[in-house]
Amino acid sequence: MESLSRIVADIAAEMAAAPDRGTPAQYIPPLAAVDPAHFGIAITLADGSEYAAGDADLPFSIQSVSKVFALTQALGAVGDQLWQRVGREPSGSAFNSIVQLETEHGIPRNPFVNAGAIVVDDVLLGRGAPREVIGEMLRFVRGLAGDEAIHVDETVARAEQDTGFRNFALAQYMRAFGNLHRPAEEVLGVYFHQCAIAMSCRQLARAGRFLMAGGVQPDTGLSIVSPRRARRINALMLTCGHYDGSGEFAFRVGLPGKSGVGGGILAVAPGIASIAVWSPGLNERGNSQLGTLALERLVHHTGWSIFDPR
Amino acid sequence: MESLSRIVADIAAEMAAAPDRGTPAQYIPPLAAVDPAHFGIAITLADGSEYAAGDADLPFSIQSVSKVFALTQALGAVGDQLWQRVGREPSGSAFNSIVQLETEHGIPRNPFVNAGAIVVDDVLLGRGAPREVIGEMLRFVRGLAGDEAIHVDETVARAEQDTGFRNFALAQYMRAFGNLHRPAEEVLGVYFHQCAIAMSCRQLARAGRFLMAGGVQPDTGLSIVSPRRARRINALMLTCGHYDGSGEFAFRVGLPGKSGVGGGILAVAPGIASIAVWSPGLNERGNSQLGTLALERLVHHTGWSIFDPR
Amino acid sequence: MESLSRIVADIAAEMAAAPDRGTPAQYIPPLAAVDPAHFGIAITLADGSEYAAGDADLPFSIQSVSKVFALTQALGAVGDQLWQRVGREPSGSAFNSIVQLETEHGIPRNPFVNAGAIVVDDVLLGRGAPREVIGEMLRFVRGLAGDEAIHVDETVARAEQDTGFRNFALAQYMRAFGNLHRPAEEVLGVYFHQCAIAMSCRQLARAGRFLMAGGVQPDTGLSIVSPRRARRINALMLTCGHYDGSGEFAFRVGLPGKSGVGGGILAVAPGIASIAVWSPGLNERGNSQLGTLALERLVHHTGWSIFDPR
Amino acid sequence: MESLSRIVADIAAEMAAAPDRGTPAQYIPPLAAVDPAHFGIAITLADGSEYAAGDADLPFSIQSVSKVFALTQALGAVGDQLWQRVGREPSGSAFNSIVQLETEHGIPRNPFVNAGAIVVDDVLLGRGAPREVIGEMLRFVRGLAGDEAIHVDETVARAEQDTGFRNFALAQYMRAFGNLHRPAEEVLGVYFHQCAIAMSCRQLARAGRFLMAGGVQPDTGLSIVSPRRARRINALMLTCGHYDGSGEFAFRVGLPGKSGVGGGILAVAPGIASIAVWSPGLNERGNSQLGTLALERLVHHTGWSIFDPR
Repeated sequence: MESLSRIVADIAAEMAAAPDRGTPAQYIPPLAAVDPAHFGIAITLADGSEYAAGDADLPFSIQSVSKVFALTQALGAVGDQLWQRVGREPSGSAFNSIVQLETEHGIPRNPFVNAGAIVVDDVLLGRGAPREVIGEMLRFVRGLAGDEAIHVDETVARAEQDTGFRNFALAQYMRAFGNLHRPAEEVLGVYFHQCAIAMSCRQLARAGRFLMAGGVQPDTGLSIVSPRRARRINALMLTCGHYDGSGEFAFRVGLPGKSGVGGGILAVAPGIASIAVWSPGLNERGNSQLGTLALERLVHHTGWSIFDPR
Repeated sequence: MESLSRIVADIAAEMAAAPDRGTPAQYIPPLAAVDPAHFGIAITLADGSEYAAGDADLPFSIQSVSKVFALTQALGAVGDQLWQRVGREPSGSAFNSIVQLETEHGIPRNPFVNAGAIVVDDVLLGRGAPREVIGEMLRFVRGLAGDEAIHVDETVARAEQDTGFRNFALAQYMRAFGNLHRPAEEVLGVYFHQCAIAMSCRQLARAGRFLMAGGVQPDTGLSIVSPRRARRINALMLTCGHYDGSGEFAFRVGLPGKSGVGGGILAVAPGIASIAVWSPGLNERGNSQLGTLALERLVHHTGWSIFDPR
Repeated sequence: MESLSRIVADIAAEMAAAPDRGTPAQYIPPLAAVDPAHFGIAITLADGSEYAAGDADLPFSIQSVSKVFALTQALGAVGDQLWQRVGREPSGSAFNSIVQLETEHGIPRNPFVNAGAIVVDDVLLGRGAPREVIGEMLRFVRGLAGDEAIHVDETVARAEQDTGFRNFALAQYMRAFGNLHRPAEEVLGVYFHQCAIAMSCRQLARAGRFLMAGGVQPDTGLSIVSPRRARRINALMLTCGHYDGSGEFAFRVGLPGKSGVGGGILAVAPGIASIAVWSPGLNERGNSQLGTLALERLVHHTGWSIFDPR
Repeated sequence: MESLSRIVADIAAEMAAAPDRGTPAQYIPPLAAVDPAHFGIAITLADGSEYAAGDADLPFSIQSVSKVFALTQALGAVGDQLWQRVGREPSGSAFNSIVQLETEHGIPRNPFVNAGAIVVDDVLLGRGAPREVIGEMLRFVRGLAGDEAIHVDETVARAEQDTGFRNFALAQYMRAFGNLHRPAEEVLGVYFHQCAIAMSCRQLARAGRFLMAGGVQPDTGLSIVSPRRARRINALMLTCGHYDGSGEFAFRVGLPGKSGVGGGILAVAPGIASIAVWSPGLNERGNSQLGTLALERLVHHTGWSIFDPR
């Protein structure tokens, strides 16, 4: 597809020159140190063809994008029982808000806010020790991406551990309500390592293919999740994937997507494409400023919005 | 399409026999009096063909479904300036919550919670007197549905006026913040009449066709809104159309939809179908119990979810 | 008492020269127009002697100070049944906050926040028409102060009516919960007139005598309320009389007191004195800046704090 | 004083027979195990005379009553600088609520809610290691009570450590806002030990004498705090000493008081008496059911309310 190459290249050029790039996350020192000049984009189509531009092969900290993979694993482990401990509604609040936990008795609104992802990790710890859970998650992501080089950036993991007071508060608070079964330190050990997984746009786009393809990994034909589960994860990404900026992302981009404070976004055009963008500068809601803009441009040129006529 | 007839008939049969039907809205007497045994469904496809079953031709009070039409008109009137006075994020709160208005200085979260729809009506009143605004809205809906018989149920309008204390509170509160320009009584006069519009499933499905068809009314070829605006209204319906049950609706059904406490839901499968269902009993979030279930069944059988591969 | 004359004169002199006077309430035009240079103080001792200085005889809008008199009347009318409809706890919120009403089902935290005072007026309307209720309240206050000249400033009452959108919102909201029995317009008619009562410091200090004297009006010997009720009203003034600045007032001044946005404060030293101060400029919590400071000075010089050894 | 002996004995007899005794705190196992049949009362008058009845010499866990002593020490250490990190307003919320911390950027409402007491302990840790801080606090309380037998119940301290997830959450949350300078584990080590101090009513009443006597310990003549500071601590106890039941306690009892979930209450009648009551059963706000009732009876018979004429 000649034109998609062109579209992707044009977007990368526009983003390289964009003056307003947002600000990298400041509260995790290794993230604050990343050069905001970076921009990368990678697209994997249903037929396996790939399109990439900019820093598409530079690894970055995927942070909360990892919540998609953790959720997928937890649903595999306990199925719909998970929903007894986590909701499925947009929170209308910031990613690290604790207010709703108090009025809603320790049940997080959805698996993509921090509190929800912490519960997801607690579920995963029902299957093994922290080290094993992280190992298994890494194997899962490597398998999805078909790339054994994917790893955890220990510097980032340690920095999160040292500064993650709000996450400790969330975990302890849920433990008070009985919605965390393991000690906070243990669960957050998994959480911080999961957030510190480093991937490039190309790797991330490949890892997201099963969500575009009804749960099947296109190249291997392996069924990762059922079609119904793939659809539902996409729905959650659409309504909850960008915290209190989810409505805006749906309005502007119109694709299921999950952002991370490292500046990455994984987006899914069901049946068509798995897309990863990365630019470290964030907007005021904590989502990648240029990543969002790049996806908006992409959808404008391709008509891939799920809200457009097929 | 033989099989769609069958699907629709099967759904109507299943819903007729469903034991758990929810409870009709109790706080508006004429709505409380509606027989919960009703169920209707109507589908209009992109090619103009229609499929209907159950009480598809019985008019009911569309209530908040009308917010879609009012929003469309307000965007036509003032364009994206509207978003200076109304947000685009799911609220995470009940349809009539007033809490966020206090912390967010009178700006409602989105145009589909009551407060947001009241601001939308205030915008429409910039163009004429209440009577004219209601008249124009009725003409608009009649034009969309191609049916001059659509009318306002004055009994319902009066009952809302008599019991709508929370709506008065919302309006007065926004007026205190300067986000309501006309007197509350005047704006709510429009609001209560708009909610009291009575339509059948068939009429409603027809009225929603422009949202499935990129903004164009299929039979007349008239452009109601631009493709971009149609897509964006769909996005808002998906993230905000069912109040604090929007995430659940996206998860289970996976279509942009807008519900009303009269038990109606308008849902859109972009490029494929405009769908209306009606059953008066509501679930605990105030959305039609059987209407939601019927749409879940429909999507299961047709694969129309926007989160499925195309 | 020679020295009290001196203390009062010194305070008035200090306040006349104070540079930081706060800002008069801006949202009610006739209040915004009052000269912030004013300061008055009047003290009535248990023996009937009076001490005054500054603008002690200039009438001002008592605003929320009137809530003390309305509460006294409502307790006289329905007794402790009142507490089924109003709480007795500090709100921790601004005087006109609506948030707690939502989570607490329309029951205001206490009778001294706006919502609580509106319920109190609704109770009084159980005994007569709005005009009569206002008439009776005026007679009550005139009797307490021994001064028939006390009146309602109709200009202020009308201005409140025109700008009191938040109060309308509070009233309508409580009506939605069934905690307002009369139409909002009727109840607020009483409320706005009550707030618009104009009194001088001297009149106000006299009117508060029954609260210092165990419920008895010292000069007439009439029992206005029982000793127990007087004590309890004092307790409510201490914990709730200055909205979300009540803790600060108790900390700095240490007397039961009720403030109004007109800049007046009525304070009570049980067994010793009834005190009224007035200065139109408000601090950031909506309480008189210099009025509070003057009372702090007074208590410092007299040792009248209820938290000091007797 | 013959009659006070009689009053105290009568109260103890009435409380021994009271049918509705509330429920001991359930979330700390050693507290849950305490027999709800206990009731004790002890009063120390300004002249040093003591009146006691019931289980007045049985030690119990003073829990949050210790916050009064910790606050006194912290004010001694850093003076009014403390108020840059803790507010002075009633919270209107439960003792362990975290909601206000989010909107108020990690500054607790007052030093008597858990979050505030944790900050107070963090301040004390500016002067020494945890072990020393606890040692000094114990020495302080022993000195106030004139009783070297007072000790920390290590079983209780350990149980709090094991179950205090909400306190960990509060501490971590404030650390995220920079309002906790030491690690949460360290600060809570102090906090849990302080709460686990065991004292009898007689010891507690003696320890509170400086608050009734303008800051001076009556038997030794030592100045513990200035008269102004004593008055202000009393004011804080009145407005904030019973969490979201503070208004009710002021309304019914009318004395500055601080309660603990162990069922103890320390109350102060300035210039007259220091009073301690204990009964393990709590009311729905977490304050001693019979302790409150006993104080209400006491004030009724003695006229000691600070809201009564002197």
